[in-house]
Amino acid sequence: MSATATRLIALDWGTTSLRTYRLGADGVALDKRGLPWGIMNLPVVEGDFSRAAGFAKAFDEACGDWLHSNPATPLIAAGMVGSAQGWREASYVEIPLAVADVGKQLTRVDLGAGRTLHIVPGLLQRAGLPNVIRGEETQVVGALDTWQGSDEVLIGLPGTHSKWIRVQGNAQNRTMTHFDTFMTGEVYAALSQHTILGRTMEHREQSDPAAFERGLRVASSEDGRAGVLSNVFSSRTLGLVGQLGATSQPDYLSGLLIGHEIAALKATRADAGCTAEPHIILIGDDKLCARYHTALNVYGLSRIDIAAQATERGLWKIALQAGLLN
Amino acid sequence: MSATATRLIALDWGTTSLRTYRLGADGVALDKRGLPWGIMNLPVVEGDFSRAAGFAKAFDEACGDWLHSNPATPLIAAGMVGSAQGWREASYVEIPLAVADVGKQLTRVDLGAGRTLHIVPGLLQRAGLPNVIRGEETQVVGALDTWQGSDEVLIGLPGTHSKWIRVQGNAQNRTMTHFDTFMTGEVYAALSQHTILGRTMEHREQSDPAAFERGLRVASSEDGRAGVLSNVFSSRTLGLVGQLGATSQPDYLSGLLIGHEIAALKATRADAGCTAEPHIILIGDDKLCARYHTALNVYGLSRIDIAAQATERGLWKIALQAGLLN
Repeated sequence: MSATATRLIALDWGTTSLRTYRLGADGVALDKRGLPWGIMNLPVVEGDFSRAAGFAKAFDEACGDWLHSNPATPLIAAGMVGSAQGWREASYVEIPLAVADVGKQLTRVDLGAGRTLHIVPGLLQRAGLPNVIRGEETQVVGALDTWQGSDEVLIGLPGTHSKWIRVQGNAQNRTMTHFDTFMTGEVYAALSQHTILGRTMEHREQSDPAAFERGLRVASSEDGRAGVLSNVFSSRTLGLVGQLGATSQPDYLSGLLIGHEIAALKATRADAGCTAEPHIILIGDDKLCARYHTALNVYGLSRIDIAAQATERGLWKIALQAGLLN
Repeated sequence: MSATATRLIALDWGTTSLRTYRLGADGVALDKRGLPWGIMNLPVVEGDFSRAAGFAKAFDEACGDWLHSNPATPLIAAGMVGSAQGWREASYVEIPLAVADVGKQLTRVDLGAGRTLHIVPGLLQRAGLPNVIRGEETQVVGALDTWQGSDEVLIGLPGTHSKWIRVQGNAQNRTMTHFDTFMTGEVYAALSQHTILGRTMEHREQSDPAAFERGLRVASSEDGRAGVLSNVFSSRTLGLVGQLGATSQPDYLSGLLIGHEIAALKATRADAGCTAEPHIILIGDDKLCARYHTALNVYGLSRIDIAAQATERGLWKIALQAGLLN
C-alpha cells in the first residue's frame, strides 16, 4: 500500500464546527478540512428538514469525495456528534477506564451501502458530583500515544469548560481514574459581558501579563479564602481605588478565575492522596495553553508539556484499538 | 410640636429607585413614597439635559410638597446619590468606623433658598482586597439602633451583591471593623441566563426547598473542595444522569452559590480569629432573608434576627448623629 493511501477518515465533530482528517499509514494526516457544520449548525436539506438529513449532508460535504475514492475506508468520529443531540447517541462509558479500552465500545451508525460510521463514547464519572467529557477522551488517548513519562499524568484541556483528566498506572496499563470540569472560560465571559464588572473594563488586543499574574495570586493569598464569589468583585473595587486600570481588569479577572481553578485542582488532588507533583500535558489553543502554563508555574507546578495533534492521533489510536485498521 | 409634625425628610436614593420618607417625632414614618427615579434613570427636564437638573426634578417630585409645607425641615439622603455618578460625590470613609460616627462626615448639596441636602458617605475597606459599601452603612446604623444584644454582630444584606458587615464592641462603642461583598445574586443571574446551565433549567413560580438545600450542602461536602467554578457544572450533570429535574435546577444552583458564600464567610471569620458564634441580623427582601436564614442554619449559625425599616431608622439616627435634629 502506498504511503499516500487513505487508511482512515476521522471526524472531530463538535457543537460549532466539524473537522475532518484523511489519515494515511501510521496515522499521518494527508488532508484536513474545517467546516462550520457543528451539530447545532447543520446544513439545510431542501425537502427533508430532519436532523438525520442534515448530518448526512454535512458528512458528505466534509468527506464524501474521500470516501468515494476509497469506498472501503473505515470511518470514525468523536465529539458532540455522539451526544443526545448528535447523529446517534454514543452512551457515556464510566470511569475508571483503561486508556487502551476507549475503542472497545464504539457506537455504529449505518450509512448504507455497507458503510458504517463509528462514534467514540463520552466518559462519565459517577463518584461525587457526576461529571462528563465528550471528545476530550479522544484527545487524552492521542496525547498519551507517544508518552513515555512518569506513572501519573494530569491532562489539562483549557477552554470554555476546562477539563482535567487524571491518568494513573504505567505505560502498559494507563487508566483514567478521575476528571474535573471547571466552567472558567464561560464564567469569565458571563461575568465580563453580563455583570457590573464589565462596565469598568476596557478590552484591548494586547494582554497585560502583570495584571494576569496579579489575579492568579489572589486564590493562594489570604484574600482567596473569601472565595470566587467575593474575589471577583475586586476587579471593580481595585479600579475604584485607583489600583487597577480599566485595560488591566480583563486580564486580572481572567487570572483570578484561572488561579482559583488551579488552586482547587490542587486541593482535590491533595484530598485524593496524590502527593507527588504530576506530569502535566496541556492540550488546546496555543495562547490559552501559554496562560495556563504561567498559572501552573505560579502554583508550583512546572513539569509541563504541550501536546499537538492530539485529536487526530487519538482518533487513529482508537480506530486501532477497535480493530478498524486490520 | 405636634406628633404629626415633619421633623426630617429622608431619601433612600439608589441606582434604580428613589424612596422618600417624611419622618415625625422619634423618626416615626408619617408618609412614604417610591419613585422610579434611580440615579441611572432620572426624569428629563426640557431645555436642561444636565444631570443636576434631573436630580433636582426627581427631588422635587419626590418631596417638594413636603418641603414646601415645612420649609425648615432638614434633608438627608443615602445610597448611590452620593457615588461618583450621583448628585454630589460623598467620598468613601474608611473603616474601622464607629457606628455612632457615620453622621459626622456628611456631604452637603446646596439646593438654594437656604436649603441643604446632606448625603451619607459610603464606606471603604482598604485592608486586603479593597471593598466598598454605599447605602448599607445606613441600614447597619438603623438595624443596630434598638439592638441590645451580644458584643459581636454580623449584619447580612443579601441581594444582587450580598454584603456582610462585622460590628464589634459593646452597645456604647460599636465599630464596623470588616465587611465582605459576594456577587452571589448577580453571578446566579449571569450563570442562569448566559451560560449552558440555563439551557437545561426550567423556571417555576414555586420554589423547590429540597433542591435548594441540596445545593446548600455542596460547599461543605468533599465535592465542595473543587470550588464554585467546578461545582456549578453539577447543575447540568446531575440533570444528565437523571438525578436533578429541570425545574429543580434553579433552586439547586441558587443553594450551591449561597452555600459557598456562607462557607467562605465562615472561613474569613475563622481566619480573623472570630471563634464565637456571631449574632446575625439579616436585612432585606423577606423571601431572600428566608433563604439566607435556611442557609445559615445549614451551616450551623442559628442566632438570627431579621431587621425591618432599617433604612428609615438609619437615616433618622444619622441625622441625629449629625445634629440636624436639634
